[in-house]
Amino acid sequence: MLLSDIALHLNLSFVGLDVELDSMNELALSTSTQLAFAVHKRYFSELESSRARAFLIPHNLVTHLPQNASYILCDDVSLSMAHVTKLFHKKPIEPELPRPVIGKNSIVDALARVENGAVIGADVIIMAGAYVGTNVRIGDGTIIYPNVTIYRDCVVGNECIIHSGVVIGADGFGFSHTKTGEHVKIYQNGNVIIEDCVEIGANCAIDRAVFNATIIRHGSKLDNFIHIAHNCDIGEHSIFVAQTGIGGSTKLGRNCVISGQSAFSDHLEIASFSTFTARSGVTKSIKESGGVYSGFPLMKHKDWKRLQVRIAKLNEEK
Amino acid sequence: MLLSDIALHLNLSFVGLDVELDSMNELALSTSTQLAFAVHKRYFSELESSRARAFLIPHNLVTHLPQNASYILCDDVSLSMAHVTKLFHKKPIEPELPRPVIGKNSIVDALARVENGAVIGADVIIMAGAYVGTNVRIGDGTIIYPNVTIYRDCVVGNECIIHSGVVIGADGFGFSHTKTGEHVKIYQNGNVIIEDCVEIGANCAIDRAVFNATIIRHGSKLDNFIHIAHNCDIGEHSIFVAQTGIGGSTKLGRNCVISGQSAFSDHLEIASFSTFTARSGVTKSIKESGGVYSGFPLMKHKDWKRLQVRIAKLNEEK
Amino acid sequence: MLLSDIALHLNLSFVGLDVELDSMNELALSTSTQLAFAVHKRYFSELESSRARAFLIPHNLVTHLPQNASYILCDDVSLSMAHVTKLFHKKPIEPELPRPVIGKNSIVDALARVENGAVIGADVIIMAGAYVGTNVRIGDGTIIYPNVTIYRDCVVGNECIIHSGVVIGADGFGFSHTKTGEHVKIYQNGNVIIEDCVEIGANCAIDRAVFNATIIRHGSKLDNFIHIAHNCDIGEHSIFVAQTGIGGSTKLGRNCVISGQSAFSDHLEIASFSTFTARSGVTKSIKESGGVYSGFPLMKHKDWKRLQVRIAKLNEEK
Repeated sequence: MLLSDIALHLNLSFVGLDVELDSMNELALSTSTQLAFAVHKRYFSELESSRARAFLIPHNLVTHLPQNASYILCDDVSLSMAHVTKLFHKKPIEPELPRPVIGKNSIVDALARVENGAVIGADVIIMAGAYVGTNVRIGDGTIIYPNVTIYRDCVVGNECIIHSGVVIGADGFGFSHTKTGEHVKIYQNGNVIIEDCVEIGANCAIDRAVFNATIIRHGSKLDNFIHIAHNCDIGEHSIFVAQTGIGGSTKLGRNCVISGQSAFSDHLEIASFSTFTARSGVTKSIKESGGVYSGFPLMKHKDWKRLQVRIAKLNEEK
Repeated sequence: MLLSDIALHLNLSFVGLDVELDSMNELALSTSTQLAFAVHKRYFSELESSRARAFLIPHNLVTHLPQNASYILCDDVSLSMAHVTKLFHKKPIEPELPRPVIGKNSIVDALARVENGAVIGADVIIMAGAYVGTNVRIGDGTIIYPNVTIYRDCVVGNECIIHSGVVIGADGFGFSHTKTGEHVKIYQNGNVIIEDCVEIGANCAIDRAVFNATIIRHGSKLDNFIHIAHNCDIGEHSIFVAQTGIGGSTKLGRNCVISGQSAFSDHLEIASFSTFTARSGVTKSIKESGGVYSGFPLMKHKDWKRLQVRIAKLNEEK
Repeated sequence: MLLSDIALHLNLSFVGLDVELDSMNELALSTSTQLAFAVHKRYFSELESSRARAFLIPHNLVTHLPQNASYILCDDVSLSMAHVTKLFHKKPIEPELPRPVIGKNSIVDALARVENGAVIGADVIIMAGAYVGTNVRIGDGTIIYPNVTIYRDCVVGNECIIHSGVVIGADGFGFSHTKTGEHVKIYQNGNVIIEDCVEIGANCAIDRAVFNATIIRHGSKLDNFIHIAHNCDIGEHSIFVAQTGIGGSTKLGRNCVISGQSAFSDHLEIASFSTFTARSGVTKSIKESGGVYSGFPLMKHKDWKRLQVRIAKLNEEK
């Protein structure tokens, strides 16, 4: 898509040479064929060093653009960005793609749908009512239980177990907001990558990334009803007990253990080998590995235990 | 159905002229063809002014009936009401209805089921494994992702996005209780109405009303795992972050923002432009619009922040 | 399967006569054809009185074995046990079994899958997209709404209502752990038994037992998003409000009422007629029946109410 066409769609003017673009990305990760966007002046250094050649940008950042950059001037970059994501959004199905490739010894129930462009490994079982979307790749030895949904372009590794009702790759929850209080969808054009030996319990939902990928790394195990928001990166061999939710772009190290009904804010970084007891509410990043935490607001588990004793004492006072 | 037949089913006597009834409703909303019921004497003024002509009623309220009313005398109105809801419950499928109408340019996967009596608009996509029940109406440009379920008689507007695993119109959770501790189902004979431009995240559940409708109004956006109980009315452009639950008959104004893992009791009224931080537990109605709230019990967000500091100080004391 | 074959698979030596085994079970429940395992010396009396004849056992417990027992010596019994569960795990589908038996007046949608070996009662409705696994049994008059999944070998009683998105019999969440932090799946070879007149709300998940059964007893009612972990035993006529989770092996008495977003730890025993208000967090067993509880940590409801007042007062202090 040409930058000039995007400007036309936005009804905004563009400056510089016209550029052919294949997708959009956040500033720090954009390549020369991707449209970048800069929302706030605190990102000016990322802007100056960006590899992108085309930008959505507010007036006050134009002087920080790399040399020879092309750009569209936006009053509200966030809103323009949302509108542009729709232009790069892929259709949910593409019947014109080649028929799916099914590996040796794999079984696909006649009541499962595997869309065109999908590539399924060997010794895979895809049970009735499962949905495997366009261009999805599934590794060897994985089992997809009934009524699982895997949205287009997602990747599931080898020896995974995906239980019924799991939804992999639904849209992350992202909107820009108009001045009159309407919410404009930021189309989620990334995907989900599930590495090898991951087990995902019944009725979990792992959202696709807005750009790039949501990742569940090797050997992690999810109990039922786990919510993983867009762009999370879950480290190897982590464990999630039921009804826990992880906010967008949060990154966990390896071998974290998260007990039931816990919740994490978005954009956190959590050190490896961290443990969280039930109903932990995590709102800040954790740098030191190996800690044990509890409560909301979160604290060291031993502090939380002492605090509960002291809170209980309030009731004993006259 | 005749009131006399209902009395026969309940093994109770009826008083007055026999009346033909087409459904049941709560007292304040009943029309002349609906069976009304009055449980408690605090509703006597609603009873006196009711447009209904047929009632389930306890002995102590008979004198408050409108003139010429017909009625069935009940020892336990709540229990009798539950039994009657079953009589008005519609069958889950009606093969004898006309074949569904599918609008122009709409795509229905061969592995989706659209029941008879359904009317689907133009430019709709209904993907594999989706279920669209009897008499369901879906507007133009809406996408129903795989393995969505829409129960009979529900309505989905234009330009909606319904993600996989969503269940629209399952029964609300309502029971009357016998003296021996058994729970008698109150059949949920209402529906769900989703207005235009609503997006519903993976694995949400929006229950049908017991009578009338559960409503999600224009432009509201739901993240994953949202629970909306029967008879809720969710205002325009509201936002629900993951794993939040709303109790029955609770009514939210427009542009409310509810963060993750929050919960609302039933029968609340929440003013427009209210914001709730993560894990809010809301048990009382809110009349003033534009407030920001936190905690359980709920309080103003700034009070909650101060309280957390003070609670933390308990741990510093010797 | 011969004990000698299991030892070979584990690369461990076995002692005693070879024994033919048909399954595995926990120590206290093992029969003479089941492989038992003893992890810790605190179980030595159960070991001495066990009816099992074959054991996985650590060195320090050998002297407590019943006479003539055969055994495999394990450095890490828990890990060996996990490996053995895989040997006894049944295939997800068995096409060679007889075609399902469907009772009188029952309706199975052409887009539902009922696997071989299943037995469906009379007057059952199985709607589109539902999955009924190998050897599942369903009683009379039960309705299975669209996109329900019932895994193999599970049992659903008479007059049950199973709403869309429910998953019955997915694997419980159980792993043994290697010294390098990997999680080895304990295959869940038990099932789920749903007794008569149970209603299960949209998108609930009830996990199958590791050994034996997870049980939901007569007349219990589950709202949406209820998580019941493996090996729970839920008493008659209990009520679960939305988004509640019950940990593994927890046993509830009859007529318990659990309000929304509550959670129970694993291995608890809860007395009959116990009531829990919203967001209760239950970590200890309750022996006295009829109590009302709140909070996390849990306390008597009246104490919790008083405590909230006292906590709120912290904010009034200068």
